Amino acid sequence: MSREIIVAAAQMGPIARHETRPQVVVRMLALLEKAAGRGANLVVYPELALTTFFPRWFMADQAEIDTFFETEMPSAEVAPLFARARELGIAMNFGYAEKTVIDGVTHRFNTAILVDPEGNICLKYHKIHLPGHPEHEPWRQFQHLEKRYFELGEASYSCADVLGGRMSLAICNDRRWPETYREVSLRGAEMLLIGYNTPLHYPLAPEHDHLQSFHNHLCMQAGAYQNGLWVVGVGKAGIEEGVAMLGQSCIIAPTGEIVALASTTGDEVVTACCDLDRCQELRENIFNFSKNRRPDMYTMI
Amino acid sequence: MSREIIVAAAQMGPIARHETRPQVVVRMLALLEKAAGRGANLVVYPELALTTFFPRWFMADQAEIDTFFETEMPSAEVAPLFARARELGIAMNFGYAEKTVIDGVTHRFNTAILVDPEGNICLKYHKIHLPGHPEHEPWRQFQHLEKRYFELGEASYSCADVLGGRMSLAICNDRRWPETYREVSLRGAEMLLIGYNTPLHYPLAPEHDHLQSFHNHLCMQAGAYQNGLWVVGVGKAGIEEGVAMLGQSCIIAPTGEIVALASTTGDEVVTACCDLDRCQELRENIFNFSKNRRPDMYTMI
Repeated sequence: MSREIIVAAAQMGPIARHETRPQVVVRMLALLEKAAGRGANLVVYPELALTTFFPRWFMADQAEIDTFFETEMPSAEVAPLFARARELGIAMNFGYAEKTVIDGVTHRFNTAILVDPEGNICLKYHKIHLPGHPEHEPWRQFQHLEKRYFELGEASYSCADVLGGRMSLAICNDRRWPETYREVSLRGAEMLLIGYNTPLHYPLAPEHDHLQSFHNHLCMQAGAYQNGLWVVGVGKAGIEEGVAMLGQSCIIAPTGEIVALASTTGDEVVTACCDLDRCQELRENIFNFSKNRRPDMYTMI
Repeated sequence: MSREIIVAAAQMGPIARHETRPQVVVRMLALLEKAAGRGANLVVYPELALTTFFPRWFMADQAEIDTFFETEMPSAEVAPLFARARELGIAMNFGYAEKTVIDGVTHRFNTAILVDPEGNICLKYHKIHLPGHPEHEPWRQFQHLEKRYFELGEASYSCADVLGGRMSLAICNDRRWPETYREVSLRGAEMLLIGYNTPLHYPLAPEHDHLQSFHNHLCMQAGAYQNGLWVVGVGKAGIEEGVAMLGQSCIIAPTGEIVALASTTGDEVVTACCDLDRCQELRENIFNFSKNRRPDMYTMI
């Protein structure tokens, strides 16, 4: 059985506030077709792929906030995407805002799912590292209210066996934390799929704005190399509702090399052939964890 | 009190097997004088700075191995370096092979020390992540017998308050492990000093040889950024006893940017003015550990 899979990073350009789910799904379908035309087995879309990045606005009315959330997946609006991916036999990953009721209590998460080639949701992840702030801060050019609108994920990372490989999911800010890559790697992940929405402007340290792209790649490349796994990072890019968002979606080999890179800030597909066996080049040698890690020495982590 | 210090990365070219400690100390003194001429407050030398990188040879005779070890520090041979640094009021870090007797038992460590401007050893570190192999493997072009000649350090990382800042030490292979940076950062380190000896050829995965420099910088830059600390990485470079060693010694800001870089493979000093207060740009914002880390989720690490 081959351990090579073709992965498509399906970057999305801006999604305006007024754009509807069906309009967005049409764009996602177009990206899916492009990916299929290039032989893709797996398509990776951004975080919160179905709507604009709504945490940039303070909204007092929960009913208004909830218009950005999904209460079922696939919803009727997203069903055509599931159906076509299944027809094509392509697995996919995307993010969305999830509203769910557990034991009678309503929860809201920043969620990512992995859908297998048969159309089943085989892995769901709730974002662990929520950035931003919980209260309205009018001094900012725009808000980043993830800490207000979402609950922290409480289930850590997990993996699913799909396409002959072991996959895991993380979302946006998770990628800046080395613990993310280590946790999934120690669970055996061979490929980590990461959707993001990253404004170029960071109000708390604008002196670093020019480094956004560098930091984005630095974290994912280091995470790939130091854990010997494939990393796919896919953003929502371009000027979305007046806010410039980072593009440069990419596929990164276990060597840390960027092997495919988006070069527009719009809807764009880039692909790479990813041999999952290459993880072993690192994991059996320099990063043989069982031989070389020293967990007894990591007392503060 | 100013929080800016001038740091000199004092890269060293090859040291031949026949070179004596006094010959090496003359070179280290020359680097010290150059650093002093550029206003340095701290000089950082490589791992195992006093000798050739002897783990490249299999030696059966412990007496022969022990010729590469120091039994006191400063030894008479190294004393002139300590004396001159103290005269100049410069702190320094270097590595050496240490043979020591604890409770009647002889131990051998791959050691780094930090010497304060008054000439006192204020911090000592025994390498935690020893690379290489414990047995003679004649198929290799050269050996890497650190696992044979040294014991694993068992004291984890620690810090010392020097020059108005909080410093920590790591050695060579430690820099490839994200846990290293996290551990010292959680202990409050603002600057991490790392000496290394890295052959360009890695016998277990020679297909990655062309990536040595990339991986070297990738790990240290990610470690700096993800923890908001200064990193100083200093190698022994050039063709040493027929083995090409990585140079590109550097000083890295808490933003992950390389702010000084050696561009030869010989004895070379590069300097940077390091404002320790800049760590806060990261630590009070995106990497505010107390607000944003999720240690309860890091169950596998």
